[in-house]
Amino acid sequence: MKPSIPQGTRDFSAAVLRKRNFILQTIRSVFETYGFEPLETPAMENTETLMGKYGEEGDKLIFKILNNGLNNPDKRETVIQDFNAVLEGKTNKGITERALRYDLTIPFARYVAMNQGQLTFPFKRYQMQPVWRADRPQRGRYREFWQCDADVAGSAALLHEVELSLIYTNVFNKLNVPVEIHINNRKILGALAAVCGGEDMMMDITIAIDKLDKIGMEKVKDELIGKGLSMEQVDAVESFISIAGSNEEKLQQLEDMFSHLPLGKEGINELQTILGSFNAIQGNGSSHTQLLVDLSLARGLNYYTGTIFEVKALGVQMGSIGGGGRYDDLTGLFGVKGIAGVGISFGVDRIYDVMEELTAFPESIQKGTTALFFNTGVEEQQHVLGVAEQLRSKGVSCEIYHEQAKFDKQFKYAERKNIPFVVIIGSKEIEAGTALVKELASGTQTEMKLEELLKGLGK
Amino acid sequence: MKPSIPQGTRDFSAAVLRKRNFILQTIRSVFETYGFEPLETPAMENTETLMGKYGEEGDKLIFKILNNGLNNPDKRETVIQDFNAVLEGKTNKGITERALRYDLTIPFARYVAMNQGQLTFPFKRYQMQPVWRADRPQRGRYREFWQCDADVAGSAALLHEVELSLIYTNVFNKLNVPVEIHINNRKILGALAAVCGGEDMMMDITIAIDKLDKIGMEKVKDELIGKGLSMEQVDAVESFISIAGSNEEKLQQLEDMFSHLPLGKEGINELQTILGSFNAIQGNGSSHTQLLVDLSLARGLNYYTGTIFEVKALGVQMGSIGGGGRYDDLTGLFGVKGIAGVGISFGVDRIYDVMEELTAFPESIQKGTTALFFNTGVEEQQHVLGVAEQLRSKGVSCEIYHEQAKFDKQFKYAERKNIPFVVIIGSKEIEAGTALVKELASGTQTEMKLEELLKGLGK
Repeated sequence: MKPSIPQGTRDFSAAVLRKRNFILQTIRSVFETYGFEPLETPAMENTETLMGKYGEEGDKLIFKILNNGLNNPDKRETVIQDFNAVLEGKTNKGITERALRYDLTIPFARYVAMNQGQLTFPFKRYQMQPVWRADRPQRGRYREFWQCDADVAGSAALLHEVELSLIYTNVFNKLNVPVEIHINNRKILGALAAVCGGEDMMMDITIAIDKLDKIGMEKVKDELIGKGLSMEQVDAVESFISIAGSNEEKLQQLEDMFSHLPLGKEGINELQTILGSFNAIQGNGSSHTQLLVDLSLARGLNYYTGTIFEVKALGVQMGSIGGGGRYDDLTGLFGVKGIAGVGISFGVDRIYDVMEELTAFPESIQKGTTALFFNTGVEEQQHVLGVAEQLRSKGVSCEIYHEQAKFDKQFKYAERKNIPFVVIIGSKEIEAGTALVKELASGTQTEMKLEELLKGLGK
Repeated sequence: MKPSIPQGTRDFSAAVLRKRNFILQTIRSVFETYGFEPLETPAMENTETLMGKYGEEGDKLIFKILNNGLNNPDKRETVIQDFNAVLEGKTNKGITERALRYDLTIPFARYVAMNQGQLTFPFKRYQMQPVWRADRPQRGRYREFWQCDADVAGSAALLHEVELSLIYTNVFNKLNVPVEIHINNRKILGALAAVCGGEDMMMDITIAIDKLDKIGMEKVKDELIGKGLSMEQVDAVESFISIAGSNEEKLQQLEDMFSHLPLGKEGINELQTILGSFNAIQGNGSSHTQLLVDLSLARGLNYYTGTIFEVKALGVQMGSIGGGGRYDDLTGLFGVKGIAGVGISFGVDRIYDVMEELTAFPESIQKGTTALFFNTGVEEQQHVLGVAEQLRSKGVSCEIYHEQAKFDKQFKYAERKNIPFVVIIGSKEIEAGTALVKELASGTQTEMKLEELLKGLGK
């Protein structure tokens, strides 16, 4: 049997993991300076917790787990009935009761609903865990991938939008990835819908606008006509998307268009407040991360009700590397009403790809073993083990070659593992209390006292 | 719908996560000083990678993932046939091709077999990931739990056994958990089997000995008789298990018993070598972690062929909190012969429980937000946001209360979140360039210059 792994999944070796963990650790440290606390939820949720939350397409992409003990002969008849239901496209408790986490938002909502009595609101949590989707694998799209979310539940204050924008700014500064943050507000899209055939049309208009980048204006217009919009209404959508200029100019044009509609006015005010506060902190200079009003930004997910965000890397061809927004009702689906919130997400895999392209990963993160002690014999090995233990207790990573072998072979091991120092302690050096230290990059070899070695490599 | 999570799974809130991550981070840092490199494998493996590797009982406890797209009408007939196979207790590609990771060893073996051409041997990897088992949940036994393994593949050197023992020692020292490490050798058990009816009996004898702790000597003897051992042979097993005294005394008795058998002699020599090297480093003093020869130690898994380990916490009633051993043939199951190895595992959940019982977690790890800035109005909020940003850029975690509210309410938030400092900056303080800082534990309130605040809390 030739071993393999499931399509769309990956093994992560040390070099890749160190890079990914650098991204995760950077995000984590910024989340924590803003008072977000970690949460982890199980990989499995009850199937009913997940089903129906991601649309019909989403339901199909959820990985369901087969119940154990199906081959109990007593239950055979029931199981066959249950299985027929599965064949009809329904999930069924007899066959599957558990499913793999599809995102981090629904498990978070489930957690808040389950524990609302114990939580302190506003509840600020971050969560960094893999999720699983039965999507067709393709370049950059995996069946197992990491998500990385921060959400505030139980507060309608716009301060959170400002802080989340600052989190994006700080994280991407630390990662050395220049970005711009696109911002819009669903209330403005709601006002547009009201102008174009009623608020019922909001989802259709939103979904069409969301495709603008991919399919272009003409096809967006075709789609809107297909949804029953009049030519006049389609023109209104087009002139809305075409609003251009600086943030201030865009906001001015929006006021002209929507200030007669309370919903529109509210959305415009929210944008103004967030931009004002963010710019007062960040400055308006072009050297800083920009918060850009982007009226074509819609975000496909239908639970957003206010601010929406998307982050784009500058100078790299890549979709959004982060996104999020405000929702009025996080936990309503689980029977708990009135918990509003706002959250953002980091696309870890895409950030990884962007950083590779920009060679933005610091070299220092690829630190493995610092020193390889050569093995020159059984007794020497015991002496060397003592020296290595002292270095290790100072946090210096070192290895002892596992057996006495030709120096060539031992050098090759150090080279292949990118170990910068080789230390040779033979019987002569033991007697003298010294060590031969060779730096592989320069080729320089130094004989030093053991105390020096312990001080020098311990730094 | 009342939200819940699947039986045997857990949500991890911040307080628990910080403790668990303290354990994982301690283990990780020690692994790395010994030159082990991280690896992560996917949560899903191909079903055939896992099935048949954990015995018949294990196969039943593997969580299988339902294939997506079962309700394709074209495939209906095939799917029904496949499903009948599942009902008969077989897995079937038509229904399930993927399963959840059951441990970290088989995925590691699969990884080494898949990538042998690229790896540098001896290949030292560590892996810390959750695994899933459909076991009946009970106190301390979960369906999702973390494993934490370090293995060396491609080397038969006993140096690794010594280093792995030192890793156990260092980790539990750092965690402040006193332990003893039990050690035995499968070759000695093999010699015992040779004396008691042939090496074929090794597994039966091993499994029976493994139960000694739980069922006692009499029942072990009953089981051995049931397996067909003669009374004489059962007596031999009993006198073997009863060997007592210091490590040296035990080894002496073993020599008397088995030195005529090459396998036995080899096992005894290996034990002696490991003990000698470990004690020369650790010292024999009672204040140090002891490596104890424990002849009743067998470990149930049948792939061990040499040294076996188990770690017990001292002063706490708890099964083993770590274990491992040497195997001759890691990757043979995947068609790659001749890769020997040795590995150890940490039982994270049990270590957690032991540390709770010993109150061994340092208080400092529960560090959340350091300062809460009170919200005294819209303009003040903007000023405070600037101050908070400066503190955050120094790595100080702080929050701004999300809305203007009674001080009582804001104090309560700080208390509930265990935030040590409250900072009040009203219009008066803005004008004076100062801040009122209240330390909640002592109740002391200090008015300080902003620069002082930035210096003081930045420490």
